[in-house]
Amino acid sequence: MSVPASRHLARRLFQLSTRQSQQSALRQLTATALSSSTKPTQTCCQFSRPFSFRAAFRDAAPKPARSKPSSDGSAGRARRFKPLPLLAAGSGVFGLGLALAFIQPAAQQHSVIDVRDDDLPLPDTPDDKNDGLPRFRLSEIKEHGPHSERPWVTYEDKVFDITEWVGAHPGGEVILRAAGGAIEPYWDIFAIHKAPYVREILEQYVVGRIHPDDLVDGRPAQDQIEDPFRADPDRDGRMRFITSKPCNAETPGSELAESFLTPNEVFYVRNHMWVPVVKEGTEADNHTISIELPDGETRVYTVGELKARFKQYTISAVLQCSGNRRKDMTDHAKKTNGLQWTVGAISCAKWEGVRLRDVLADAGLSLADPGEDAQHVQFTGLEAYGASIPISSAIDPRGDVLLAFRMNDMPLPRDHGFPVRVIVPGHVAARAVKWVNKIVVSDEESQTQWQRRDYKCFGPNETTQDWDKYKSIQEMPITSAITRTRLIRTVVPNPSIPVLPPATASSSGSITAAPNVESLAGQIVQLEGYAYSGGGREIQRVDVSLDGGKTWDQARLINDKKLEQGSKAWCWKRWQYEGPLPEGTVQEAASGKEKKTTFVVKATDEVYNTQPETHQSIYNLRGNLATAWHRVDFDCGTAEKPCPPPPSSSTAAPASETKK
Amino acid sequence: MSVPASRHLARRLFQLSTRQSQQSALRQLTATALSSSTKPTQTCCQFSRPFSFRAAFRDAAPKPARSKPSSDGSAGRARRFKPLPLLAAGSGVFGLGLALAFIQPAAQQHSVIDVRDDDLPLPDTPDDKNDGLPRFRLSEIKEHGPHSERPWVTYEDKVFDITEWVGAHPGGEVILRAAGGAIEPYWDIFAIHKAPYVREILEQYVVGRIHPDDLVDGRPAQDQIEDPFRADPDRDGRMRFITSKPCNAETPGSELAESFLTPNEVFYVRNHMWVPVVKEGTEADNHTISIELPDGETRVYTVGELKARFKQYTISAVLQCSGNRRKDMTDHAKKTNGLQWTVGAISCAKWEGVRLRDVLADAGLSLADPGEDAQHVQFTGLEAYGASIPISSAIDPRGDVLLAFRMNDMPLPRDHGFPVRVIVPGHVAARAVKWVNKIVVSDEESQTQWQRRDYKCFGPNETTQDWDKYKSIQEMPITSAITRTRLIRTVVPNPSIPVLPPATASSSGSITAAPNVESLAGQIVQLEGYAYSGGGREIQRVDVSLDGGKTWDQARLINDKKLEQGSKAWCWKRWQYEGPLPEGTVQEAASGKEKKTTFVVKATDEVYNTQPETHQSIYNLRGNLATAWHRVDFDCGTAEKPCPPPPSSSTAAPASETKK
Repeated sequence: MSVPASRHLARRLFQLSTRQSQQSALRQLTATALSSSTKPTQTCCQFSRPFSFRAAFRDAAPKPARSKPSSDGSAGRARRFKPLPLLAAGSGVFGLGLALAFIQPAAQQHSVIDVRDDDLPLPDTPDDKNDGLPRFRLSEIKEHGPHSERPWVTYEDKVFDITEWVGAHPGGEVILRAAGGAIEPYWDIFAIHKAPYVREILEQYVVGRIHPDDLVDGRPAQDQIEDPFRADPDRDGRMRFITSKPCNAETPGSELAESFLTPNEVFYVRNHMWVPVVKEGTEADNHTISIELPDGETRVYTVGELKARFKQYTISAVLQCSGNRRKDMTDHAKKTNGLQWTVGAISCAKWEGVRLRDVLADAGLSLADPGEDAQHVQFTGLEAYGASIPISSAIDPRGDVLLAFRMNDMPLPRDHGFPVRVIVPGHVAARAVKWVNKIVVSDEESQTQWQRRDYKCFGPNETTQDWDKYKSIQEMPITSAITRTRLIRTVVPNPSIPVLPPATASSSGSITAAPNVESLAGQIVQLEGYAYSGGGREIQRVDVSLDGGKTWDQARLINDKKLEQGSKAWCWKRWQYEGPLPEGTVQEAASGKEKKTTFVVKATDEVYNTQPETHQSIYNLRGNLATAWHRVDFDCGTAEKPCPPPPSSSTAAPASETKK
Repeated sequence: MSVPASRHLARRLFQLSTRQSQQSALRQLTATALSSSTKPTQTCCQFSRPFSFRAAFRDAAPKPARSKPSSDGSAGRARRFKPLPLLAAGSGVFGLGLALAFIQPAAQQHSVIDVRDDDLPLPDTPDDKNDGLPRFRLSEIKEHGPHSERPWVTYEDKVFDITEWVGAHPGGEVILRAAGGAIEPYWDIFAIHKAPYVREILEQYVVGRIHPDDLVDGRPAQDQIEDPFRADPDRDGRMRFITSKPCNAETPGSELAESFLTPNEVFYVRNHMWVPVVKEGTEADNHTISIELPDGETRVYTVGELKARFKQYTISAVLQCSGNRRKDMTDHAKKTNGLQWTVGAISCAKWEGVRLRDVLADAGLSLADPGEDAQHVQFTGLEAYGASIPISSAIDPRGDVLLAFRMNDMPLPRDHGFPVRVIVPGHVAARAVKWVNKIVVSDEESQTQWQRRDYKCFGPNETTQDWDKYKSIQEMPITSAITRTRLIRTVVPNPSIPVLPPATASSSGSITAAPNVESLAGQIVQLEGYAYSGGGREIQRVDVSLDGGKTWDQARLINDKKLEQGSKAWCWKRWQYEGPLPEGTVQEAASGKEKKTTFVVKATDEVYNTQPETHQSIYNLRGNLATAWHRVDFDCGTAEKPCPPPPSSSTAAPASETKK
C-alpha cells in the first residue's frame, strides 16, 4: 500500500469520527461509544454501517495465533508482527486513538475523561486463576520493555505480549511507552482506553499472569508501577502550577512585567503529556526529524545535520496559550472547560534555529509553487502531540517559522522541547510543537483533536459544537492584561503620608491595596502589563481606565526595540501607567464601601483591531481566546486588614433625610 | 540638485509643518498661519526660526522681473521659468500645499476650511483702476490655458501670468488646472490659499486686468467662471450623495446586500477632488506611470506597455473607506469630523490588471532584497491625491496589489480611476490611488495629509493629535453591518395575517417597520448584511441578536466562493438571518411603546478578532474605523404611520395600582 493510499484510508477513519461528533458534544460521543447498545447516528456510504470506536479498534486488531509462550517468556511460534503500512503511518491515524483524550485537560491531574474503570462491564473472558497460564516475575516483565524484541504490558495481574498489536494500535508506537510495566497509568491519561472493547482486544494477547509473590491484594504493588511523568524535569517554585502531571504552570504576574524576555525557568509551561527524555550530546544531535512531502517522498534530518547545513536565524517571539486569561472568562461570564489560566499563559523569548521553509525546500518542496496537495504542514512530537499550520504560514518569507534549538541563549530546556521544537511566531502556541520528530506536508490539517477540535471558538450561544464549522485557531487576536499594580508616592510628596507597600494583582484578578484608606487621597496608582496581537500586528496603543471604563488615558509603551528581532512584530509590548486614583474612589474608601473602582486595560494594534468589551459576548464553552478588556477590581485591602469602620454620622444621614 | 537631495529638503519642509502641528489641532495651525502676529511655537535648529506656511510660500516664490506685458498678451522679456528640481519633484513637497486642505471634507460642498475670503486683510498692493495695466478679454485669457506657453489665471478682476510660479508652487503643476480662467473655484477647494501671503505671491505676477466689458459688478460673470468639476461624469441616481463636488456618494443599503460584486454604477464613490479627464483609446493607452526607485532611477511605462508586457491577474476585493459607518459613531458616541457615511462606504468588485510587484521588479527593484531605503511605495494620482503603502504589502507575493485597468469586466469607470488605479486588497481604500501616474519607492511614507494625518485613529480621550504617534491605517480591522431588514411570513403561515411590506434600514440606522403592531406577533424578521475584515482575514462567524445583545444566534453566510478570486480572502461575506421577533418586543408594541428592540450584528474573523461593543470606546475625533457592533433600532413605524393607540385599559392600570 502506497503512503498516499494509507493516508487516504486514515483520513476516512478520522472523517467518520468527526462526522459523528457533529451530532453531539465529545462527552456524549464517548458515552455512545461506551454504550453496549450503540445507536447508529449517521451512516457512511463507503462503510455502510455506523462508525464506532469499538469497531475501529476491532478492525484494526489482527487476530493473533493464540500460542502458549515458552517458559522463558518468549512467545513461541508467534511470529513478529509486521505493522500494516496504514497503521504504521503514525500521524495518519494518530488522532483516532487520542481523539477523546483531552476534553478537560484542566480539571483532573491525570485522567481526562472521567470514566471510572470500575463502572465498565468486564469483557466476557475466563478469569480463572487456575487457567494454566505461566506466572512471570515483574523483573522478567520489565525486560520486555520498549526496545525489546517482544514488548509486554500488564493490566491488573495479567501479562500481555503486544508485539503484534503495536503496528495496529491507532495511537501508534506511543503504546511502547508502557512496555515492560503496567498500562494503567497511561490509560489514566488516554482515558479512551477505559472501555470494554479495548479490554477485549488486549485479552487476545494474554500470555500469562504476574507471579503471586509480586502481588499485593491481587495487583502489582503501587511502588512497582512506574509513573509516566517520572522523568519530568524539576520546575521553578515561583511558577503558578495548575496541574503537575502533565505539567501546566503559568508565569507569575510579578515576573511577566519584569523583563521583556521571560527567563527560561519561569517561561510558562503547557504540556499535554510527559516530557520525552532526549540526552544532551550525541543523542540530541542524532534526534531525527522526518519530512514527508505530498508525493510520499520522505527525507530524514538529524538535529546535527540541520544545525550544520542550514543558516541559523534568531528571532524574539511571544508564545501564548489559546486559554490564556480563561479564568477571567469563567469569572466574568460563566464556567469554561479547560485549564483555568489567569494572565500568565504567555511569555516571550529569543529563539534560535533554522527556517522551516529552508528545510522544506531542501527536502524537495517547491516554495514558489508548493502545489494543490500542499495545504498544511503537520508536526508531531516525540510524546505524541500533533498539530499543523497552513502552508502559507510555513513558507512565508516573512513568517520566521523556525525549527528552534535554543531559547534565550541556552539550549531548549526539556520542558520547552529539547532538542528541537517548532516556533510559529504570531500563532497560537499550540502549533509550536515541542520535541518535534515528524513533519508532513499534506492537503489537510493534522488529524489530532488539538488541531481539529480543542482550539476553536464557537459563538456565545453555541453549546453543540460542529467541529468543522470554524477554523482552527492559528494567528492570535489582540489581547492585553494588567500584571502588576502598586500605589506609589503622591504627586506632591507629603512626608506625613508614608509610601505604601506594593500591592500585587492576585490570581483572581483583584488587588490587595493599602490598608489605610485615608492615605489613599492623592495616591498615584501604578499599573504594569503587556499587550500582544498575533500575526505580527504591532501594538499601537494601550488605553487604561482607572474608573471602570468611564474615562481613558494612554499607557506608556516600554521601548524594548533593541530586543525585538524578526521580520514582523512577534513580541508583546510591555506598558506602564501612572495616574491618581479617581476622586470618587477615595471618597468611597473613606465611607467604607468595600469595592471602590475597577482598573481596565484594552489595546489596539496596527490594523486598529481592538479587544471586545466583555467576555459574555465572546463566551465559548472551551474558554478559548478570552481577550475581553482586562478588568481588575480595586478594593481597600480587606484580604489583609479590614477597612476602617465608616464614620457613623455619614452612614445614618441618607435614611433620616428620606423620612423628613 | 540630485533627486534624493531634493527629497531630503522636501522632507524637512514637511517635518517642520508636522512638528508644529503637534502643538495644536490643524485648525489652530491654520489660524496661526493666517494671523499677522504669528507667535513662534517651536523652532527648528536647521532653520533657526519658527516655521510658517507664509514663509514657506514666500521662500518658494522666485522674484520675477516685473516686466510689462506686450499688447499681444505675451510677457515680454520675462523668460520661461525653469522649475527648481526641488519643487518640481511634485510628490516631494506636494503634501505641503495640500496639507490643510481637507480637514473637514464632509461638511461643506466646496470649501473645506471655513475661512471666508472677506475676513482676510487684503495685501498692501495698489488697486487703482488707472494703474496703466492692460485690459484683457476673457477669450484672450482663456488662450493662456494649461497647455499654453504662458499660463495665466485671474483673481477678482486681475490677470496673473503664473509661468514662473508653476515650478515653485508647493502643490506642483496642479495649479495649471486653473490656467486660462479664474483661480477662485480652486481656492474654494484648496482653502489654504485664502491667506494674505498667498495673495502677496500672486500679486507679483500681475500682468493686467479683465476688460470692463467682461465684468459684472467688477468681477467676471458667474457663468464665465468654469467649475473645476465641470467634466465630472454623470452618476447613478440611486447613490446616496453626501457631497457632489467633490463627489462622495455611498451605495444604498438595498444594493449592498443585493449582489456579491457591486455593480459599477452603484459602487461607492470617494473623490477628494475632480475627476481627471483621460480620453478612451490612444490617450488612455499613452497615459504614463513613472516609477522612481530609491536611487533616483526612474522608469516610465505607458498603460499600453503595462498591458502588453506584463501578465494580467484577476482578483475580487472589497474597497472600504476608513470613514464607513462614521455616522454611526456620531450617533452613538459624539460629533466626528468627516463625511457622515452610513453603512455604504464599502463595495466589492472584480479587478483586472498587472501586479505592482512585477512592474517594480521590471523597473529594477530587487524583490528579494529591496534594501533599507525601500520602506514604502508612494502613489500619486492625476488630480493630486497621494498615499503610500509599506513595501512589504507592495511586494508580498500573496498581497495581490494591482495596477488595475478593469472593474467588473468593464474598463475602469472614470469615477474609479480610468485608465488605471492601484488596488491594495485588504487595505483601506485610501491607498488605492486612482488615476495613478507616479509611483515612488522611498524610505518614508507619502508626505500627503491623507497618509500622515487624516487616516489615523487616536484614543477616545485624545483631543490633541500628535500625528506621528500612531501608524497610518493600512490593513482594515473587522466590521459588519445590517443593510436590509424586512418582516416575512410567520413560521406557520396564517392566511389571516397579511405579509407586511418590506422595511428598509434608513440611513439613520432605524428601521421603518410594519404599521400594524398586532400583526407583529409571530412575525419573522429577516436581516441581511455584510461582514468584512482586512488583511485577507476571512470572516468566520456572524452573530446576530434581535434583543439588543442579550441573546445571540448565528447568521447564515452566503456562499459566494465561485466569485472569490485572489490569494487571500479579500472580499466581504454577505449574510442572512431569519428569526422571530422577541416576545417582549411584540408585547411592548402592543402596549404602544415607541421603541421595541434593537437588532445587533457583530462578526468574527479567522484570527478570532471581533468588533468592539461600543463606539464610545473607540471614539476618535476623525470618526475613523467606526467598527463597533452595528445596532439598528426597531420601532413600529412612526416615521410612516403613527402607532395605533394603546388599549386604554392597560395604560391606566399601573398608575391606579400604585395608588392602591
